[in-house]
Amino acid sequence: MHIMVIGAAGMVGQKLLSRIVADGGLGGKAVEKLTLVDVFNPKAPAAFTGTVTALEADLSLPGTAETLIASRPDVIFHLAAIVSGEAELDFEKGYRINLDGTRYLFDAIRLANGEDGYKPRLVFTSSIAVFGAPLPFPIGDEYHTTPLTSYGTQKAICELLLSDYSRRGFFDGIGIRLPTVCIRPGKPNKAASGFFSNILREPLVGKEAVLPVSEDVRHWHTSPRSAVGFLLHGATIDLDRVGPRRNLSMPGLSATVGEQIEALRRIAGEKAVALIRRVPDENIMNMVAGWAPGFDATRATGLGFTAETSFDEIIRVHIEDELGGGR
Amino acid sequence: MHIMVIGAAGMVGQKLLSRIVADGGLGGKAVEKLTLVDVFNPKAPAAFTGTVTALEADLSLPGTAETLIASRPDVIFHLAAIVSGEAELDFEKGYRINLDGTRYLFDAIRLANGEDGYKPRLVFTSSIAVFGAPLPFPIGDEYHTTPLTSYGTQKAICELLLSDYSRRGFFDGIGIRLPTVCIRPGKPNKAASGFFSNILREPLVGKEAVLPVSEDVRHWHTSPRSAVGFLLHGATIDLDRVGPRRNLSMPGLSATVGEQIEALRRIAGEKAVALIRRVPDENIMNMVAGWAPGFDATRATGLGFTAETSFDEIIRVHIEDELGGGR
Repeated sequence: MHIMVIGAAGMVGQKLLSRIVADGGLGGKAVEKLTLVDVFNPKAPAAFTGTVTALEADLSLPGTAETLIASRPDVIFHLAAIVSGEAELDFEKGYRINLDGTRYLFDAIRLANGEDGYKPRLVFTSSIAVFGAPLPFPIGDEYHTTPLTSYGTQKAICELLLSDYSRRGFFDGIGIRLPTVCIRPGKPNKAASGFFSNILREPLVGKEAVLPVSEDVRHWHTSPRSAVGFLLHGATIDLDRVGPRRNLSMPGLSATVGEQIEALRRIAGEKAVALIRRVPDENIMNMVAGWAPGFDATRATGLGFTAETSFDEIIRVHIEDELGGGR
Repeated sequence: MHIMVIGAAGMVGQKLLSRIVADGGLGGKAVEKLTLVDVFNPKAPAAFTGTVTALEADLSLPGTAETLIASRPDVIFHLAAIVSGEAELDFEKGYRINLDGTRYLFDAIRLANGEDGYKPRLVFTSSIAVFGAPLPFPIGDEYHTTPLTSYGTQKAICELLLSDYSRRGFFDGIGIRLPTVCIRPGKPNKAASGFFSNILREPLVGKEAVLPVSEDVRHWHTSPRSAVGFLLHGATIDLDRVGPRRNLSMPGLSATVGEQIEALRRIAGEKAVALIRRVPDENIMNMVAGWAPGFDATRATGLGFTAETSFDEIIRVHIEDELGGGR
């Protein structure tokens, strides 16, 4: 089996690759070949014994997609995107990368399908940003997508294209609406959502973190491990069971910031909690007010997608996967 | 005021133009200039005393949109599209005209907005084809768009773009999800939905019509007069009242074919009903089974959009507008 990961250098892409190598295959089939694509430095996973091709390529340039598809990968994970903040700041860049790039990919596959019947599995990472306030809690599987960011708009459009191209038989697509990934490893970044991870990750290693919103803010989370699990399940699931509605809100954990902090207290004690500094930020509070509080992910759950059921579990996953099991 | 109608040669476009001329303006403002755009022969309305520019132009060709926008119309009605059947038969043409053409238009306005602050009202005709089976009855304002045709996909994508471009302040957009227009004037055509109109329009003038489905088929209708009313209301409504969710399912009439026939009986008698020939068509029955049975158009109704409340009324509108008030 030949797997291509577009957006391979990102956090989720890297964890996905490590997991495929650790599992020794995908859906019980051996993986002989990995093609890793990103605009910069798609690092090959250690310990993979098959063939690895790492390509620095920009999917938003016409022609790139055709070149990638020439190698006819069996499974394509399309994770590449510029993030919400950047897509909002640079309108044209957002549409070029998040919409046109994806459409180039879909069309290159469509043309290959016309040539020789090529029909890969395509797993696309969408986002809960396809939903925009005012939102109910929980958000059901049949709730409309009315994004309030250009990023969310671009993801919602790609979802529609994915369904139509799948319906026409050009590829076997599935769209995975990822919850906010928490605890995001690495350093604190400037993403408006960063604090959800920062207030847990930093205190766990004895560092201060800033909390810019009040404790009653409710949001929708999943661990990096579960996010990778969603993608792998999407790559192997029987799509006849999914039917024509190919974009699925994933299961996750709805929790308030206060509940996150309580879980931290249970696992790492009062000393860790004391490292959270409250610095209210009007801008971030306003943004977060429009974010999804949580989902009733009945369809995805029924289709076998699984996620954590407590924040204690999310913190333990972080300790196991990022801190070597200890603190 | 300068009004541009793109797709001016179509049935709705022509009726819209006649109505603007008959009303002597739009929203209480005089219309000095009309620009009519279509790929073929956009006919100028009779009795208009202002300036008319009629252009044969293809919006799906790069550069056309910039040329159109150079004249800075105050209000743009974008009605141009290839229909569902053609978009399904010719995948590339459908995306080129229904998606790329619309995006060229939106981007030309965006660039003009960047140059001199140009910000027109833009009224876009969407369709109930953005919804795909299985559908509830009635379909609520917050139901998700999961189209089962490429046409419906293209309309749903344009809706998302319209909302985002409006949110960013490039234009004041509103998307009008038209019900099936009934009674469609003119000759019977090959559209799968044609029979809804044929079984009324033809018997009203003593001609036979073919009914390919059973009488219990339920669908969502509005008269051509109401469709034009939706567009005019969309062109003048205070968009602050609409808010960021700019795409609205219009009010209409949910009726079974049997109820259509009963209305025909009441208005034109048994002799008219006897002209309906039942010729079941498996293909059409299968297509129609996935169509929208009706909507709970609470938002649009609350915003002042109005439609007929009985099929008798829809038939009378046809008699008034198409048959000179008599039969």
